[in-house]
Order: sequence, then structure tokens, then C-alpha cells
Amino acid sequence: MDFKLHNTDDRSGARTGELTTDHGTIQTPIFMPVGTLGSVKGVHQHELKEDVDAEIILGNTYHLYLRPGLDVLEQAGGLHKFNGWDRPILTDSGGFQVFSLAENRKLTEEGAIFRSHIDGSKHMFTPENVMDTQRTIGADIIMAFDECPPGTSSYEYAKTSLGLTQRWLERCVDRFDSTEGKYGYSQTLFPIVQGCVYKDLRIKAAEHAASLNREGYAIGGLAVGEPTQDMYDMIEVVNQVLPVDKPRYLMGVGTPINILEAISRGVDMFDCVMPTRNGRNGMIFTSEGTLNMRNQKWANDFSLLDPNGTSYVDRFYSKAYVRHLIRSNELLGGQICSIHNLAFYLWLVREAREQINNGTFSDWKEVMVEKLGRRL
Amino acid sequence: MDFKLHNTDDRSGARTGELTTDHGTIQTPIFMPVGTLGSVKGVHQHELKEDVDAEIILGNTYHLYLRPGLDVLEQAGGLHKFNGWDRPILTDSGGFQVFSLAENRKLTEEGAIFRSHIDGSKHMFTPENVMDTQRTIGADIIMAFDECPPGTSSYEYAKTSLGLTQRWLERCVDRFDSTEGKYGYSQTLFPIVQGCVYKDLRIKAAEHAASLNREGYAIGGLAVGEPTQDMYDMIEVVNQVLPVDKPRYLMGVGTPINILEAISRGVDMFDCVMPTRNGRNGMIFTSEGTLNMRNQKWANDFSLLDPNGTSYVDRFYSKAYVRHLIRSNELLGGQICSIHNLAFYLWLVREAREQINNGTFSDWKEVMVEKLGRRL
Repeated sequence: MDFKLHNTDDRSGARTGELTTDHGTIQTPIFMPVGTLGSVKGVHQHELKEDVDAEIILGNTYHLYLRPGLDVLEQAGGLHKFNGWDRPILTDSGGFQVFSLAENRKLTEEGAIFRSHIDGSKHMFTPENVMDTQRTIGADIIMAFDECPPGTSSYEYAKTSLGLTQRWLERCVDRFDSTEGKYGYSQTLFPIVQGCVYKDLRIKAAEHAASLNREGYAIGGLAVGEPTQDMYDMIEVVNQVLPVDKPRYLMGVGTPINILEAISRGVDMFDCVMPTRNGRNGMIFTSEGTLNMRNQKWANDFSLLDPNGTSYVDRFYSKAYVRHLIRSNELLGGQICSIHNLAFYLWLVREAREQINNGTFSDWKEVMVEKLGRRL
Repeated sequence: MDFKLHNTDDRSGARTGELTTDHGTIQTPIFMPVGTLGSVKGVHQHELKEDVDAEIILGNTYHLYLRPGLDVLEQAGGLHKFNGWDRPILTDSGGFQVFSLAENRKLTEEGAIFRSHIDGSKHMFTPENVMDTQRTIGADIIMAFDECPPGTSSYEYAKTSLGLTQRWLERCVDRFDSTEGKYGYSQTLFPIVQGCVYKDLRIKAAEHAASLNREGYAIGGLAVGEPTQDMYDMIEVVNQVLPVDKPRYLMGVGTPINILEAISRGVDMFDCVMPTRNGRNGMIFTSEGTLNMRNQKWANDFSLLDPNGTSYVDRFYSKAYVRHLIRSNELLGGQICSIHNLAFYLWLVREAREQINNGTFSDWKEVMVEKLGRRL
């Protein structure tokens, strides 16, 4: 993998760059649609390419390990072949899901023992087997296996947890570096910087991660219940430590405003279920603010879903029709709002890139944050 | 509306024709995807046009009357404008839903009083207001309001019910003929022939309907629990009475085999929820038989979903991937199977047309019925 930093904003930490993988090149800052089980919910692969303009998507190790399972993925020749997505893929390590979704989990130095949320079957994830699993899934970018403490953790808990995450990270690196990709293209491992909302822990974690000299780094354990300002502060703290010439990925964040604020603090990569999850519930994000499509006010509004939108759904369907579909629990309503929101998130990061490259990011961001906060 | 009969099969009742409406021309025999609430579940309008090759879709009066309601539809300029489908639309009258879905229904000579299955609100459908409602929805082809007795009804019940349906039909015709379309294009009214599985009632109903000299006729009250052979027999009985030069629409039927058998008995138009409902459950129909995509046997089958399929989903997605999506309850699985099944149904009727025009329908039908009955 190769990362080239292009431009850095004079008045903020925002930067543009280009990430090259064996499955193609990604312009940063970038938003990555979440395809937990190898499918972005409600959206066809060709829609992701042609309508949403997605450059890279996510898969999830915990989910893909349970279904369809590693045998199927290996026989398919990896996730790209399995789901037909031939652009880059990043897989989350499953750490977050083991702690948020699995049942009866038990943490040891060796790893995490848990029961499947689907059938109660017992499994163990270790740093080593999670590396092997992601080798088999075949993502271009794979994530370290970490513990994800709650956003409200005490300093003591966060510190102990970070110690384990760091020892696990070293084991991940050892395993990753002593194995090879299974399908003829290269993979890269990103460490995850934890440390809750504690500045010294975040610095320590970032320094440790940086010392391992990887091709990119992730910031985890944010947007998990802490105040938004704490999240922004932690991003700043971590990005002051992480190397400037490597991409930084803020995991699981967030609203359009969160993304602009994080870009201005030097983040390059994002993922979040919000565009699809909120879309299925009829909430759409636009450049003029947020719309709840369930509202009565759209009942007779036959104007285009989003006259400024970049996807065909914005120009084909009306607000009144989408409101009707969402209220009637018609699948098409969620499909339309998901495509719209994903296309909007991709527009947002594309526009941010242009503004950074033009040296106008900070002024633009200020105007956008005000607009994005509106409820229409 | 105009109907031209093209060719009739020498060895069966099968025929081809062309139905012209103000929203375009339909080749018959035709299958009409069901868009109950103004949306074919899980399928975008452009997919219906470009991938499924649908020529006409259905809407449902009962559902559209309740949601989004007539005010919205009238302000939109009718259903075509509301949902963006600019080809022909047929609306069912709501008779079937009032008797199958609504609560606390009460039948009088005047009409049917019922409570909404959504919010319990009280409504009355009469032949007159159902005509007005369909004028407002703006379908090209609108259906008479009828009583739909169960498939297991006694002769006595069926006879009494048919009497009411016939009186209602005359009221529908009077109302329809004394009103005009609201949006500048013409609409036409199809009577529905009822009579359960009783030959003399079916003949009586068909003679009465035919005497009203409409532009097309529907056969209702079949595939509602009676033996399949009874359904085929009733189709034959009715089609011997209905005028040869008018299209015949068999309502709510059925499996691919049912459709071929009905075509061979002179039916021209079909609708059914089976392609989408069964698709969402992972059952797909192909020219080689039926596949249950949940089965273990597809887990490692990375071949194309349907190598003979006509839709892009058949050539893009594998059986193993679709099985994974269906088993994991991923929305995309149902979307893929729905598009596949609709495209298959449209292929089936297109192929039937060609075979009829070539004089090879009966032999082809025999081979196809055998194949379609297989479980793969």
C-alpha cells in the first residue's frame, strides 16, 4: 500500500492524499460505506459504484467469520470475488462486535472467548487468529484486534485495557508480518489507537502504535458515549503524535458534522452505519440540513428528493413519494434513502477534498457545519 | 384502449395480441408486477424498466386509498406522476383486500363497510366511490368492485354473492361511463367474472360481463384455495364465453406453470405477488426449475445465480453469495431474488408469445411445464 499526501490546509489540520492498494486508488479524505456481511444493506454493488461513487467499502470480521464462514470465503477466493466488489475493502477486526454483540464474552490475556449472537456457539478470537481470519477474508486493509472499552470507562479500567490492547497489537503485528496474503495481492495492517477520553493514555497509545511503523493508523473507541468535544479533543491529541505521512482512519464516526470536524483535525478515512441505518428509518442528510421523511410536511411536497443531490434517486423520486414509502414500510423507501445518504457522504468528502486543495476548506467548513446542523 | 389479436395457437387456446393505452403499448400474454402501494417491493422503477422489462404494473385501490390517500394522489397528478412510472398501470378495485385484509367488514347492498387494517378507522367502499377512487388514482385499466367469496364457498353462497357482484358491476359501469379521467388520458373498466368453481355460475357471470361490452375482462376468485384443476376448468369455461377480440386478465395467478396453463386456455394478462414475495424468502424460479436459495447445497456453489437469466443480477451475483445474503436476512438478498423472479416471469411470457407466433407453443409448453416443476 502506498500513501501520498497531497495538500494540507493552512488554517486547520485538514489534508488531501491518495491511497493506493492492489484493488485501486482511493482519494482521501474518504468515507467508506459499511458492508458488514459483505453487502451494504439495501444497495446493489453497481449502485455503490455508479450512483454512490464509493471507492472502498468495509466488511466485518466477526460477522463474516460467523456467516458465511471462512471455508466459503476461502473457496470463493476472498471477499472481493464472493461479493463482486473489485475495489478496495477494509475489514474491521471484530473487536468492537465481540464486546457489543456477542454473548457471554470472557476476556483473557490470550484473547476473547464468546458465544455467537446467532446460534450461541462458542468461539475464541486471539490476535493471531484474527490476523489469519482477515488474511482469509482478503481485505486490502485489515485491523488489529483490540479491546474496546465503553466511552464511560474509568481511568483505571481504560489504562488496564490499553495495556492489553497494546500487547495484542504487538502479537497482531508479529503474526501479520510472518504471514502472507492468500490471493496474490498485498494486504496491510492498521493498528487501532485506544485510550478512552484520557489524553495521556491516547498519547501513549499513539506513540506505541507509531513506533510499530505501519502503513496507516486507526483511532478507535470514540463516538461510544463520550461528549462530542471529548471526541474532537482526542482526535487532535492522537493526530499530533501519529506520523504525518500516513493515513489516519477514525472508526465508526459519524454525522456529517463529525466528519468535517474530524477532517479539519487531520483525519483521512471514515466509516459509519449512519447513512444506511438512518436512511432505512427515513432520515436523510443533505447539504441544506437533515430531513425526517416521516414528517407530515413532506406529504404534499412533490419536489425532488434533493435538488442538490448527486444520485439518480435525488432526481427521480419526490419527497412526497419517499415519505409515503417510508411511512408504509415499503422496502424501496429505505433503499432510496440509503443510496441518497451514501451518495451525500461521498459528495461531502469529495467536496472537502476540493476545498482543501483550493485552500478554502476552513471557510467552507464553517458554512457547511451551520447548514448541516439544520432540521428541515 | 385498443386491443389487436395477433396470432392464435392451432393446438390450444393460446393467443398473442397488443394492447394500446395512452401510456404505451403492451404485448400479450403479459405478466404485470404487483406494486401494491405504488412500489414493487424492493425494486426501483428503473430496474423494472431496464432489468425486468416490465410493460405494465399494478397498484391496489384499497392500499393506495388508505396510504398515501386520494388527496396526495390527486395533487400529484395521479399515480404515474407520483411514483414516476410512465408506462401503463392497472389498479385492482380493493374488493379482494376488503375481504382478506380489512377488519370488521360488513357487506350491504350499498357496499362494504370496513375498518382499516392500519389504524382501525372506518370506511365504506361502494361501486360508485371505488370508480371515483380509481379515476383519481389514475390507472389506465381499472377494475370493477366485486365481492370475492372464498374458494371453498357453497353453491348457495357463491350464487348469492354473484348476484351482488353483478348488480355492483352494473353500478360500476354506470358510474364509470358517466365520469371522465382526471388527467387528460383515457381509462378503461374491466368487469370481473366471479362464480367460484361452479360452471353454471361462471357461464352466467361471463355472459353478463360480456353483455356489457367493455374493452377487456378479468377472471377473479381463482387460486383462492380451490384445486388447481378446478381453476383450469373455470378458465376454460369462462374463456369460451368471453369475446375473442378482447383481452382476458386472470387475477392473482400464479406459479410459472399456472401461467403457461392459463395462456394455453386463452388468458392474456396476469399478476401475482409470488415473484417478489417468494423472492424475498429466497425462492427463485428459473427455466430449469425452482431453487430454494437457503439450501446448504448452494453454500459453495460460486456459479452464476442463473446462467440462463435475462437480468444483470443473474450474471453478476453467485448462488453462494445470494444464499449467504438470504440466510443472513440481508435486504440485498431479497432485492436480487425479486429482480431475478420478475425478470424470469417477464421472460416466460415473452417466450410464450414467440412460441405462439411461431406455432410451436404447445410443444414448448409441455417441455417447460416439466422443467418448471423441478426442484433444483
